Amino acid sequence: MSAIKPVLVVAGVRAGGTGAATAAAFARKGYSLALISRGAEDLQALVDELKSAGSDATAFPVPSYSAPSISSVFQSIHTRYPSPHYAIRAALYNASHSIRKPFLDLTLADFHAAQETIVEGAFAFSQEIIRVFKENDIDADTGKRGFLIFTGSTTSIRGNRTTSAAAPAKWGLRALSQSLSKEFGEWNIHVAHAIIDGIINTPFSRSRFNDPPNWVENEDVRLNAEDIAKAYVYLAEQPRSAWTWEIDLRPAHEKW
Amino acid sequence: MSAIKPVLVVAGVRAGGTGAATAAAFARKGYSLALISRGAEDLQALVDELKSAGSDATAFPVPSYSAPSISSVFQSIHTRYPSPHYAIRAALYNASHSIRKPFLDLTLADFHAAQETIVEGAFAFSQEIIRVFKENDIDADTGKRGFLIFTGSTTSIRGNRTTSAAAPAKWGLRALSQSLSKEFGEWNIHVAHAIIDGIINTPFSRSRFNDPPNWVENEDVRLNAEDIAKAYVYLAEQPRSAWTWEIDLRPAHEKW
Amino acid sequence: MSAIKPVLVVAGVRAGGTGAATAAAFARKGYSLALISRGAEDLQALVDELKSAGSDATAFPVPSYSAPSISSVFQSIHTRYPSPHYAIRAALYNASHSIRKPFLDLTLADFHAAQETIVEGAFAFSQEIIRVFKENDIDADTGKRGFLIFTGSTTSIRGNRTTSAAAPAKWGLRALSQSLSKEFGEWNIHVAHAIIDGIINTPFSRSRFNDPPNWVENEDVRLNAEDIAKAYVYLAEQPRSAWTWEIDLRPAHEKW
Amino acid sequence: MSAIKPVLVVAGVRAGGTGAATAAAFARKGYSLALISRGAEDLQALVDELKSAGSDATAFPVPSYSAPSISSVFQSIHTRYPSPHYAIRAALYNASHSIRKPFLDLTLADFHAAQETIVEGAFAFSQEIIRVFKENDIDADTGKRGFLIFTGSTTSIRGNRTTSAAAPAKWGLRALSQSLSKEFGEWNIHVAHAIIDGIINTPFSRSRFNDPPNWVENEDVRLNAEDIAKAYVYLAEQPRSAWTWEIDLRPAHEKW
Repeated sequence: MSAIKPVLVVAGVRAGGTGAATAAAFARKGYSLALISRGAEDLQALVDELKSAGSDATAFPVPSYSAPSISSVFQSIHTRYPSPHYAIRAALYNASHSIRKPFLDLTLADFHAAQETIVEGAFAFSQEIIRVFKENDIDADTGKRGFLIFTGSTTSIRGNRTTSAAAPAKWGLRALSQSLSKEFGEWNIHVAHAIIDGIINTPFSRSRFNDPPNWVENEDVRLNAEDIAKAYVYLAEQPRSAWTWEIDLRPAHEKW
Repeated sequence: MSAIKPVLVVAGVRAGGTGAATAAAFARKGYSLALISRGAEDLQALVDELKSAGSDATAFPVPSYSAPSISSVFQSIHTRYPSPHYAIRAALYNASHSIRKPFLDLTLADFHAAQETIVEGAFAFSQEIIRVFKENDIDADTGKRGFLIFTGSTTSIRGNRTTSAAAPAKWGLRALSQSLSKEFGEWNIHVAHAIIDGIINTPFSRSRFNDPPNWVENEDVRLNAEDIAKAYVYLAEQPRSAWTWEIDLRPAHEKW
Repeated sequence: MSAIKPVLVVAGVRAGGTGAATAAAFARKGYSLALISRGAEDLQALVDELKSAGSDATAFPVPSYSAPSISSVFQSIHTRYPSPHYAIRAALYNASHSIRKPFLDLTLADFHAAQETIVEGAFAFSQEIIRVFKENDIDADTGKRGFLIFTGSTTSIRGNRTTSAAAPAKWGLRALSQSLSKEFGEWNIHVAHAIIDGIINTPFSRSRFNDPPNWVENEDVRLNAEDIAKAYVYLAEQPRSAWTWEIDLRPAHEKW
Repeated sequence: MSAIKPVLVVAGVRAGGTGAATAAAFARKGYSLALISRGAEDLQALVDELKSAGSDATAFPVPSYSAPSISSVFQSIHTRYPSPHYAIRAALYNASHSIRKPFLDLTLADFHAAQETIVEGAFAFSQEIIRVFKENDIDADTGKRGFLIFTGSTTSIRGNRTTSAAAPAKWGLRALSQSLSKEFGEWNIHVAHAIIDGIINTPFSRSRFNDPPNWVENEDVRLNAEDIAKAYVYLAEQPRSAWTWEIDLRPAHEKW
């Protein structure tokens, strides 16, 4: 595999978030990066930053995470990182859609937005990725043709008073990951799901939650995106005899 | 409540199936029936049958279980069963969409069809129903303003090799039901979910599965729609101090 | 079966509690009652009360719910309710042991007490019951040789900060019930588990929890033992095509 | 912490198994090893092997995993690895008890043996370990006073036809680990649970299962103890912002 450059594809990248941290962590392992996100400007800024740190990264902005958007962006990815010089060996579906509203305040558009970004995008993403993985050879160290991980959350396993849009989508994503894990294990394709059970310290969450000074400095009460990325790298490197479908991650002091 | 006629609304009705059996069971309890289904002819035949058995039933055919279809059919239901002469007190979302294919054989249309029928339709249905329930008084016996149940299946809790379209939708439906159960309990609205863990003996399943003679006659190995309906009636009548969110149902000999 | 009197065996009976209410409910269905409990005096008072209401009930006091106690009391039960005049057709294992302490405050005796009462007693009870059930004929209505139910709680599915003695025992009980349900379904023996997710309104709980006047009168916020008993009767009567392994029960307003 | 030697305590060690592999893996990270096991001779052979590989290891044979045995062996451990020269920073409870029998063939002794080894031993072990951990300082890298992991299996989450002894114990162990994880997170004590979902390639399993030549050479169908140990080391090193309670591990081709 020496001459072939491995590529990580991430959908759902925001400065300082899980997607960006995972990209940086895989770059340090020698991966080229294909980063899909809404928000072309921010994405380009992030790519520039990764490149100035010496990584090979490309921005693939999308108008939305709808299935057609996702499918069409893969054509650009394959053009930029063509086989056999490059091989997509790892992928993260990290796109999410935050919506917490009383049920009767939800519009159909609200509900659709969560379904589209979280489940439908993941479906299209997975089809593109798994088609590619099936063409890969099996990596000698890990026994994998490829590694596909999905980012979940507490809402992935628990419905609650304001989750009637988010939980159906997040549970759906988890179901997709379990189905794929079982179907493609025998192809030596490793599919995993992470339950992020707490607040991640990102520019976005710092702007949203009260009392940031308190929790920003205290690593015992919120997650670092870099630490989530470490978990994803660990899972990507798990050897074929012991693969994980699901891992939960939370800060030491989380009251779960 | 004596003068006000209770109404059961069912979405997803097929001759001999869970929806039809539930309709008949609630009719015997004095409910009028609003039956929503695709397949106008079959639906009308079923309604005629219920009426000839003395029930007050009306067919509400829909072109699909998409949210707009569901929302629009409720206008007709309210016209037919106007308040305050009628009160919708029970509702079953029973629409499903059977699809078992290898992941890479699924089209986006396949995936959408499962999402639309199973999750999106349920979302729209639930909004219509809960808005109505909130206006009801609390029934003295059961402590309920209304009872809303969803039909799930084994696929609602387990992803598998051919469930990458069905499981995301079914897990999503279960998440919706749990979110609603938690949000509307304090409104005395009872939301429940049933996991039907086995084959139901219906004309449809008899036409689909091999070896029907064997299992049709053996009640130990497959479900009767009437027995599922009994469970739904039981849940509808549970008193306010002890409500169930989730019940599983399977034949005595099911190897689960 | 007309001449043979059905018997319900309950382990874990306290005045006003789930066991007592279940006994009364099955008595109304024509069952004779074999009631096993610690606290001989209270048990006899309860039996006298049931008898004065016309039921056939017998007290079987035990010093503890240890396996040897349970096994030995069944000899007395069989003497009192001999075959073929009587047939044990239903059984409830309701013995529990309330212990909520910080982990490091637990003694080994504390831990053992929970294990003994909740798991070990249930093991011995189940062996006695299932041996008897296997000799029964199959009831034509329900398709059952017998019905065995276990009372669980929130602690049966969730470990928490003060449950390091109770949760291992309660999860163990749930595992036992699931194993038995799967093993003996093909014998037409119905095994079920109930998750009681809230406070039950009993003399015992009224003495333990603060603010009873408030919740005693409000059926929306706590369980009635009689309503739990109704669920157990319902499960006992489920027909063979649609049996439930697990049901959860909670008050309408429970914040779960 | 430089002058203080970290110690890993393992209960349940067999040549070629998870306990032994974990010991070796932590030894490579600089840990001294306190190994608790039945079978004094085999244990000493293993310790000799670890020592000849340069590790600091000591055998602590026990007659059983009963709570008194476990508690008493810790006195020897503290004597051998006294504070402040040594600090117990990691612990693995890996003792198990394999029993698969039809329910009615189980003796009370069978049931007790599973409970004693799997749950009661873990309770005593955890009390000893957590008391020690609470005295440790917090490691700067990981944010931990200590790391405690339990080995579970498929039986930890699923009851089945021959698991009426093993599943209650394994579910109980899992409940203990969840309770401890929640109670001691705020003490910066990391408690985790691993679901090993497949056959591990050990001398013991090779002697037990048919067709070993086939699966021994095929890392896609069974687990390597060394790969499980890698997962345990990874979890021990997780930084404080992102700790895992539960991880599942299975071979690439496992049909789960």
